[in-house]
Amino acid sequence: MGRVTVRRPVLRIRDGRQSQRPDTLAAEEPMEVRIGGRPVTVTMRTPGHDFDLATGFLVSEGAVRAAEDVMSIRYCAGATADGVNTYNVVDVALAPGTPEPEASLQRNFYTTSSCGVCGKASLDAIRTTTTWPIADDPLEIDAATLTSLPDVLRSAQRVFDSTGGLHAAGLFTSGGELICLREDVGRHNAVDKVIGSAVRSGLLPLRETVLMVSGRASFELVQKAVMAGIPALAAVSAPSSLAVELAEDSGLSLIGFLRGESMNVYSGAERLTFESA
Amino acid sequence: MGRVTVRRPVLRIRDGRQSQRPDTLAAEEPMEVRIGGRPVTVTMRTPGHDFDLATGFLVSEGAVRAAEDVMSIRYCAGATADGVNTYNVVDVALAPGTPEPEASLQRNFYTTSSCGVCGKASLDAIRTTTTWPIADDPLEIDAATLTSLPDVLRSAQRVFDSTGGLHAAGLFTSGGELICLREDVGRHNAVDKVIGSAVRSGLLPLRETVLMVSGRASFELVQKAVMAGIPALAAVSAPSSLAVELAEDSGLSLIGFLRGESMNVYSGAERLTFESA
Repeated sequence: MGRVTVRRPVLRIRDGRQSQRPDTLAAEEPMEVRIGGRPVTVTMRTPGHDFDLATGFLVSEGAVRAAEDVMSIRYCAGATADGVNTYNVVDVALAPGTPEPEASLQRNFYTTSSCGVCGKASLDAIRTTTTWPIADDPLEIDAATLTSLPDVLRSAQRVFDSTGGLHAAGLFTSGGELICLREDVGRHNAVDKVIGSAVRSGLLPLRETVLMVSGRASFELVQKAVMAGIPALAAVSAPSSLAVELAEDSGLSLIGFLRGESMNVYSGAERLTFESA
Repeated sequence: MGRVTVRRPVLRIRDGRQSQRPDTLAAEEPMEVRIGGRPVTVTMRTPGHDFDLATGFLVSEGAVRAAEDVMSIRYCAGATADGVNTYNVVDVALAPGTPEPEASLQRNFYTTSSCGVCGKASLDAIRTTTTWPIADDPLEIDAATLTSLPDVLRSAQRVFDSTGGLHAAGLFTSGGELICLREDVGRHNAVDKVIGSAVRSGLLPLRETVLMVSGRASFELVQKAVMAGIPALAAVSAPSSLAVELAEDSGLSLIGFLRGESMNVYSGAERLTFESA
């Protein structure tokens, strides 16, 4: 339980020279999320902060809107045939009055629309599901503050240096202060963990915050930010076309290629200030 | 249809200087796969090679084992309410006699086991589903050939240079010759496209080949290689713990951190030769 890294023997080849030595790997194990005993999704994740992950996932899917919507979370003790607790099955009990989510929870934005799928249909679906519109969020952030985020994230990533295998997500204040950092082999899990942690601290909606991710910005990550009421998403690498479309549509500020003193602003540039320039 | 990149305006900030200019983004759109009209999965993918993607996905899930298992593949013309073909819904007709896959196709390795999920259960499930054991595959590959693969992959990636946003997967012969290259915003999609293309050319099982991916090696990617009968997987970045476990268990040669003259061999090192040394 909670093994973030695993040691394994490895044959290293460096400039033609071979050596046998132990290597540190990022742990990856499946986790099943259940609601009231009913399985809703399985994700491949790095163990640790599993309750954050389950909570954040349910926020992303619109099933949880506040800490009070979750009555309890626990590991299923008898998850395997022989009754062993694998710490890979998490059961969430929703508070009375919280609507049970649909059977096909994951990807329900797409599969519930009998009219088929296209970018536009997805955008429409997400817009109606969001509890907190972010278009009018008063966030203002200085470009110099943004350029400081990758270093803060990187230096807070203790695990990364040893495995090179983990994605990171960090939630920041408009002043560039780190509120929460989470890591995972899956970048969507890292974001779910950050959002889940914030929810469980009673912080939802995450007004005037910036979410920073170590990799690329996909549609899915923009969707998760929007669902949590986060008005800005910054990524070290490139966004996809649909990520930009959804960001524009939702009023999210989307920054990509945030490296050194440089960045690309794909939407919501009006939230950036240039005081230090 | 088939838009691999999209042009969008972007605010560029370089060393404090702002400029407005068009930027090239990797296209991302949802694609729904149907079997005989019944939706089985939705994936966020880069349009293009969609029939390869659908076929490869069905190979990964054990539903397709040869080109002949697929009778036809087509885009659904009336996928939207107004009858427009979005080119985002693909319908696969299986050949008579090919068993219909289960209702919950995606992730069925996990969710069908009522005993819950753990790494071991997943490994057991995959081992019984594989049609072609790879442990006895006679592949031999020189370390020098392996170190040449990233450059071949990179130089064959025309799109990458313009967007920085696409994952690549390439299938190689033991001599280091590129059989097929595919790119996608999702690394699992890039692999499904490569495998699907090979299947549709009648190449399954992919004996004595090497699959090379531009990013990390997750459990899911090892699983896809194993399901297609590919005996070796090489990745530019780190593997996860469960990827190594499944590789070891299936007899797959797993190489990570393949950069310059260096690499880490996590399993199946006996397939490597060092003739050029």
